[in-house]
Amino acid sequence: MSKKTAPRRADYPYVKKVTTRWMDNDVYGHVNNAHYFSYFDSVINEYLISEGALDLQGAVVGFMVSSQCDYFGPLSYPGIVEIGVRTERIGNSSVTYAVAAFAESDDAARAAGSMTHVFVDRRTSKPVPLPASVRRALEAIAKKPSGASRRSE
Amino acid sequence: MSKKTAPRRADYPYVKKVTTRWMDNDVYGHVNNAHYFSYFDSVINEYLISEGALDLQGAVVGFMVSSQCDYFGPLSYPGIVEIGVRTERIGNSSVTYAVAAFAESDDAARAAGSMTHVFVDRRTSKPVPLPASVRRALEAIAKKPSGASRRSE
Amino acid sequence: MSKKTAPRRADYPYVKKVTTRWMDNDVYGHVNNAHYFSYFDSVINEYLISEGALDLQGAVVGFMVSSQCDYFGPLSYPGIVEIGVRTERIGNSSVTYAVAAFAESDDAARAAGSMTHVFVDRRTSKPVPLPASVRRALEAIAKKPSGASRRSE
Amino acid sequence: MSKKTAPRRADYPYVKKVTTRWMDNDVYGHVNNAHYFSYFDSVINEYLISEGALDLQGAVVGFMVSSQCDYFGPLSYPGIVEIGVRTERIGNSSVTYAVAAFAESDDAARAAGSMTHVFVDRRTSKPVPLPASVRRALEAIAKKPSGASRRSE
Repeated sequence: MSKKTAPRRADYPYVKKVTTRWMDNDVYGHVNNAHYFSYFDSVINEYLISEGALDLQGAVVGFMVSSQCDYFGPLSYPGIVEIGVRTERIGNSSVTYAVAAFAESDDAARAAGSMTHVFVDRRTSKPVPLPASVRRALEAIAKKPSGASRRSE
Repeated sequence: MSKKTAPRRADYPYVKKVTTRWMDNDVYGHVNNAHYFSYFDSVINEYLISEGALDLQGAVVGFMVSSQCDYFGPLSYPGIVEIGVRTERIGNSSVTYAVAAFAESDDAARAAGSMTHVFVDRRTSKPVPLPASVRRALEAIAKKPSGASRRSE
Repeated sequence: MSKKTAPRRADYPYVKKVTTRWMDNDVYGHVNNAHYFSYFDSVINEYLISEGALDLQGAVVGFMVSSQCDYFGPLSYPGIVEIGVRTERIGNSSVTYAVAAFAESDDAARAAGSMTHVFVDRRTSKPVPLPASVRRALEAIAKKPSGASRRSE
Repeated sequence: MSKKTAPRRADYPYVKKVTTRWMDNDVYGHVNNAHYFSYFDSVINEYLISEGALDLQGAVVGFMVSSQCDYFGPLSYPGIVEIGVRTERIGNSSVTYAVAAFAESDDAARAAGSMTHVFVDRRTSKPVPLPASVRRALEAIAKKPSGASRRSE
């Protein structure tokens, strides 16, 4: 549908399965566009939690400040979709992820976009520098995870 | 929370994993009660589809006419929940399922309930006798799946 | 669909409008059963908050321990549904609500059920006696709101 | 949060109320980013349906091919949010909407973005020229709704 070129699985260092749900399909029988963002932030946050970089009860939390997606073809319940994540730009207190959704057997993405997370102090909602554990987790799924120069920023 | 006794995994012949989502958690950090029903009907319908017993574009569709759940303890994103399904009562055009939700490592259900499906003609919304393929799939996950007498009804 | 008798608007002292959403409709073009529970607990909690009886950041929170619904006919996006609430049984630390969903122009409910809320200490998750403000709000929408004897319990 | 400038109510010719739901809030107590897209497409499609320009059972359906949102500040359940819509670019078979979400009492948007709808033949999923009824409805909420020249395109 979108005229951009659909990215490929190999473009995403981190890929995780999500089970679709009956209610994800809309009246046209396809996963509704809003659910893709739910898939994306679920996989992003689960990655950070599994790396010990985010604690839902912790002092630093991540707020999404922008999100964007292009749709290349439909996905549908039932079955599994696979969500790819890559960190695209790691800033002082924010990170932009490249994200994509794949049908289980496909190499070309059905949808691809980006989301930007800002890390803030839970009490004040003010941005804070990325904690070391977060930065480490983000760098591990960057386009060039071996990029030592980034770490020395 | 509920004073009933939580059922066990062995009570459910069919068990399927569901990935939780960030938005399943409410402000208290637990999966909101409404999402359990989404887990249940997603697993029920996916089972029927995988058995060739339900076609989302077919002439016969299943409508939920009642649903009920007791909550014994919380579930939370991130991670996986496991949904158990058993057919409890197979009627002429309807079926009642016993359903339950388990944390990945647990034997006792965190939630358990029931849902009743009525199979109807898509055009008229009138109940129809259970198609043979549906009946076969339902009997395969009944409390006593070996019940040959049911099959010869 | 359900063979029970659909209740009427006059059976519910508190009625509140909910706007349906595109994604509420499933592939059959009807609001998915799970969304009804979301309508119900949204209206219940908003009522308690508006009465000053519930504070999402407060020390006492309400957990749903059981929920149940019978479906008499479909509801669909677009448009408004009206949700009726009545307190059915007010206990020491819990309350059972009777709930129903109406199409905007109808007197007979399309769905009706019940939900039970237990009020707990947020830190310990142990039940606590209903705070006075909660009890007052619950009694105001009881079947017989004039029931002075209840207030003096 | 986003560094862009939040748009104002007057920037949107069509504004419609949406009731928030308990489950819209995530664990941080704010409406999760994915729900904004659900608000947006619910209001867009309801507008088209109310204008007689879209029939959920009709031969021509609208697929979202891209969506984007910047978040300026949080929204939360309980209460009402107001969704603004404007058509930004009306093409041969597609339309891009500018959309925004407002807290009930505010003039500055809490979130603003865009969504692109392509109208397709339901059977073939191929783009079709905008039906006259759709074009009329879209032009009525364009930036310059008086733009007669557009109508004569």
